[in-house]
Amino acid sequence: MRVRILWTGKTRENFAAEGISKYLKLLRPLAAVEIVQIREQKSGSVDDRLRKEGERILKQSSSYILMDEKGRGLSSVEFAGALKDRAQVDFVLGGPYGVSGEVRSAASDTISLSRMTFTHEMSRVLLLEQLYRAMDIMRGGGYHH
Amino acid sequence: MRVRILWTGKTRENFAAEGISKYLKLLRPLAAVEIVQIREQKSGSVDDRLRKEGERILKQSSSYILMDEKGRGLSSVEFAGALKDRAQVDFVLGGPYGVSGEVRSAASDTISLSRMTFTHEMSRVLLLEQLYRAMDIMRGGGYHH
Repeated sequence: MRVRILWTGKTRENFAAEGISKYLKLLRPLAAVEIVQIREQKSGSVDDRLRKEGERILKQSSSYILMDEKGRGLSSVEFAGALKDRAQVDFVLGGPYGVSGEVRSAASDTISLSRMTFTHEMSRVLLLEQLYRAMDIMRGGGYHH
Repeated sequence: MRVRILWTGKTRENFAAEGISKYLKLLRPLAAVEIVQIREQKSGSVDDRLRKEGERILKQSSSYILMDEKGRGLSSVEFAGALKDRAQVDFVLGGPYGVSGEVRSAASDTISLSRMTFTHEMSRVLLLEQLYRAMDIMRGGGYHH
């Protein structure tokens, strides 16, 4: 499976960066994972920034699953089911203020990691771990129990 | 507020340990947080281990909120609401195989971080971050937005 994950800006938290490398290392033998770092817009109002970042996201992908706390809540097994039989999937993860309305409405699906609000950097680690878990569930490994 | 968090075994993942210290450092000026590390049972069947660890947990606390994926799913604001006006609260977080039936049925409440299965070490970071977020929500800070 080819997986592209689009997220906005660098990872600043040290522990999140370490978690990301850990799960990328585990994932890469199982899937072709590419991180597409969208350039952060640093000036303007929150709405302006989201709009500019949104244009950059939409330039990179036209069909993607948006990860957003208002999305569908799935169990890890249901998440694996949603990915099964797909050759290619793109994910979009918002920044600290989420994504623009345009990115939201163009999403082919919106999935939530939790009803709770997590930091956007922690969500990067969680998404990668869920992807690794999904691969394990699909091949019937022993990581998910 | 006095908060005690009971969890089983050491934190082995480096990135999780770093995330835990980060949020403990942020939390400690706002609440008296104590981590109670329950000794891990390393021999016996999974059921035996959970039962032994469960006895140790129940020796430490008689009234606690169990964090478990089968619990109530709350938003961060609802989670803050559940803690409001409490002087003292204990949380129990299970290990890789969760907790025993005894610990499950003696819980005064069961709350879920997500419908998805996260690793128990990541859940430690997430619970601490949600507690920090809850404190911020209660005092009307700007961390949660």
